[in-house]
Amino acid sequence: PAELPDMNDPLIDHSEGQLFLNEAFKIIIEEVLCKGTDVKQKVCEWKEPEDLALLLDLELRAAGEPQQRLLQRVKDVAKYSIKTSHPRFFNQLFAGVDYHALAGRFLSEALNTNLYTYEVAPVFVLLETEVLRSLRQLVGWTEGDGIFCPGGSTSNMFAMNLARYRLFPEVKSQGLWAVPRLTIFTSAESHYSVKKGAAYLGIGTDNIIVVKVDEGGRIIPEDLEEKIELTQSQGAVPLLVSCTSGTTVRGAFDPLDRIADVCEKHTTSGCIGPERDRFKSVDKLLLSLLKVNYMLHVFCCVFQAAWGGSVLFSEQHRHLMKGVARANSVAWNPHKLLMAGLQCSALLLQDTTNLLKKCHSANATYLFQQDKCYDVNLDVGDKTVQCGRKDDCLKLWLMWKAVGSIGLAERVDKAFNLVAPVIKERMIKQGTMMVGYQPLGDKVNFFRMIVLSTLVSKEDMDFFLDEIERLGNDL
Amino acid sequence: PAELPDMNDPLIDHSEGQLFLNEAFKIIIEEVLCKGTDVKQKVCEWKEPEDLALLLDLELRAAGEPQQRLLQRVKDVAKYSIKTSHPRFFNQLFAGVDYHALAGRFLSEALNTNLYTYEVAPVFVLLETEVLRSLRQLVGWTEGDGIFCPGGSTSNMFAMNLARYRLFPEVKSQGLWAVPRLTIFTSAESHYSVKKGAAYLGIGTDNIIVVKVDEGGRIIPEDLEEKIELTQSQGAVPLLVSCTSGTTVRGAFDPLDRIADVCEKHTTSGCIGPERDRFKSVDKLLLSLLKVNYMLHVFCCVFQAAWGGSVLFSEQHRHLMKGVARANSVAWNPHKLLMAGLQCSALLLQDTTNLLKKCHSANATYLFQQDKCYDVNLDVGDKTVQCGRKDDCLKLWLMWKAVGSIGLAERVDKAFNLVAPVIKERMIKQGTMMVGYQPLGDKVNFFRMIVLSTLVSKEDMDFFLDEIERLGNDL
Ligand SMILES: Cc1ncc(COP(=O)(O)O)c(C=O)c1O
Ligand SMILES: Cc1ncc(COP(=O)(O)O)c(C=O)c1O
Repeated sequence: PAELPDMNDPLIDHSEGQLFLNEAFKIIIEEVLCKGTDVKQKVCEWKEPEDLALLLDLELRAAGEPQQRLLQRVKDVAKYSIKTSHPRFFNQLFAGVDYHALAGRFLSEALNTNLYTYEVAPVFVLLETEVLRSLRQLVGWTEGDGIFCPGGSTSNMFAMNLARYRLFPEVKSQGLWAVPRLTIFTSAESHYSVKKGAAYLGIGTDNIIVVKVDEGGRIIPEDLEEKIELTQSQGAVPLLVSCTSGTTVRGAFDPLDRIADVCEKHTTSGCIGPERDRFKSVDKLLLSLLKVNYMLHVFCCVFQAAWGGSVLFSEQHRHLMKGVARANSVAWNPHKLLMAGLQCSALLLQDTTNLLKKCHSANATYLFQQDKCYDVNLDVGDKTVQCGRKDDCLKLWLMWKAVGSIGLAERVDKAFNLVAPVIKERMIKQGTMMVGYQPLGDKVNFFRMIVLSTLVSKEDMDFFLDEIERLGNDL
Repeated sequence: PAELPDMNDPLIDHSEGQLFLNEAFKIIIEEVLCKGTDVKQKVCEWKEPEDLALLLDLELRAAGEPQQRLLQRVKDVAKYSIKTSHPRFFNQLFAGVDYHALAGRFLSEALNTNLYTYEVAPVFVLLETEVLRSLRQLVGWTEGDGIFCPGGSTSNMFAMNLARYRLFPEVKSQGLWAVPRLTIFTSAESHYSVKKGAAYLGIGTDNIIVVKVDEGGRIIPEDLEEKIELTQSQGAVPLLVSCTSGTTVRGAFDPLDRIADVCEKHTTSGCIGPERDRFKSVDKLLLSLLKVNYMLHVFCCVFQAAWGGSVLFSEQHRHLMKGVARANSVAWNPHKLLMAGLQCSALLLQDTTNLLKKCHSANATYLFQQDKCYDVNLDVGDKTVQCGRKDDCLKLWLMWKAVGSIGLAERVDKAFNLVAPVIKERMIKQGTMMVGYQPLGDKVNFFRMIVLSTLVSKEDMDFFLDEIERLGNDL
């Protein structure tokens, strides 16, 4: 009958499809990777939203379109998108994309692997394990756990959830109503994901206690200590100290070692305050306080910021994160400074008690059977609150293989050290202007313009800013 | 001085990088897209974990590697990964990958766009808006809101968080301690992300009330109603009814219309039970009960399951989701049945009060300034709890443009209708065996093997199963 499909006419024509993909690939190379990284081309082709909407012909219609028109669409999307690999995009310290990481990303997309079990993702389970191990090694841990998350914000939230579960495992089944009020300590300069996480996890933004910073934007450990004591006297339980290594705006590094000292000191005190009797779980609570090493979790985000970054790769700069090995968890975003590409964010844990799985698992029997023919610890999928999970590790692994730890360290060192001296050298050689630069605190080099002369005009100031940009724009 | 870098020697060599990418692309086409979709090739090349680890040479070392070895690594990763596009992979109803979606995915990776503001993601902000609008139209809403999430589990969790915020906006700042105990209603056959979400958001898995299902795996509305009343009498507040359209294992469709009736009926009753005096926020609570339309949110996951799917595209099958327009939120996973590729999951909302942004925003001043030169509603980044967010919409948009709504509807119809009749036709023509098939309830076609004869052996049963597989393996 006419309704039956002709099975020789498959739904997808592979050779036609591959032809299309080939043509699209050429456009990507030309528009995104050649033009998009060429300093002589524009970073963006600004259009008003209404005009751009018309140009793109957004509407999704009943009928399909011919291949040529679709290729034109690929070109249009490329043309009107911001070239994030362009040397002038946001003054990024690295002009351009990492091609090994990009090759890994294309391969991941083509394989379309769902990273839950060894069965369906043998290669990626092993790669992820190895990349996490290598990152942990840089932190200074020989053992531990971890997982790749869809972004650093998610890594931060996982850290909060783990801290909560470690102190009060009953929260998973009974909810926050069963436990005392919890507080999170962080500085006002920390990333907004701490706030978003507190709201999302049901803890509430009011229960974030803002710790004072010094003139360099770093948490003041004495203030942290005071606030911990205050919060305890009010009947709340300090849950987590969230530190930042490379704050988003200023690039400050919180003093991890001294913060860890404060945390350790308060680990065994275990005071829950006058309101403790209100909570049924108080016995369990006291028990868990004796069991855990810290009552507080030190949580360090190692993110790119103007001057921050993945400093652990660098012998020269890793002192900025001294004490990081004393943290319970570290969130690390190789999608930023290291150029692995969105999304690539690892949450690393010192824990060896399978906390991640215990906290997040739902033990779905249709996926995570316990009687498999291989070590079921390789079925990592239940360590996350996700179900389907993209592979985010291959790109980092391939890039790391390509340039080695030495190559990655070099990138960090160059980003930290060389921008100011090089601009300075050019200034001198081209004779356009002179200005001093210097390190500030533990940050490396800032231009310091000292305005003493009353002859300096607004035009001069503009020229100064333009020149710094001009001179540095290919760095 | 020797320490200064030679600026003519840039960090990244674009032409060398592009050469590598080109070679990697050829390998991807050959290994993943040609061999990986060829029914004569293996779905997987099974290795024991220890052997595979050795083969892949996982270790990340100090030094980088030559290009040829890196290309071999690309090949190895492809070779030992499961071919998820292979026609025999998990009996998927669609053999193969969608090449237009894949081209979109490569383009997204190359552009590496961070989807927060119109400024940095003009094209993707518009594409996302349009795709969400078109999906909402299929649900039956002319207005509304939405966002793409890293997976359906996250979409489900966002729906819970939104429901909570809508009833108790104070939860965002004060946490769950400030509000009465909340409960979530769902069936035992719903996806485990409901459990994971309840735990993660601090609500607790014990506060998931399991509603009974009928013999077809569908929620029984009468049981829902009883459980809602019971929960209210115990002083808890019903927060959300989470329905499933196409359950994970059985593919059942919950009766949305009748469930919406139950929700509507209980919207204005507003009984919080005897314990209400314990909660300070009770006045606010009563107020919000008067303001909202439903007290309960109907939440429908439209996911692929054996026989479920994106049925809203199909005139023939959309009746399975009758009543969906009465839901407050719908989570839709085009990365499954529609083959858009991981990750592609949309959360759709009927809400027009900017709930998504109010609930999730942190109003970071460094990103979301209010005095921009364009409509700041285009800065969608603060609608999510993420910060960096991958573009997940381009692939769906391009695929939709390529085949049109008609093409997508055809895929759904074929998946639902034609598998059984075609296998049957082949059975008859090849004469190997005969077996009946029939619809069961609202599910379309099952093979029904009636074992009456005492002559049927275990071998016969095996043959039957093998034959069904053999006959259907290119569908
Ligand atoms: C009904 C249902 N809901 C939710 C999900 C989770 O979706 P994701 O894997 O994208 O998180 C699935 C996945 O199988 C599902 O079948
Ligand atoms: C210090 C810090 N933490 C967390 C994040 C969030 O990371 P993501 O964008 O991957 O969610 C950022 C991003 O800028 C950051 O700078």
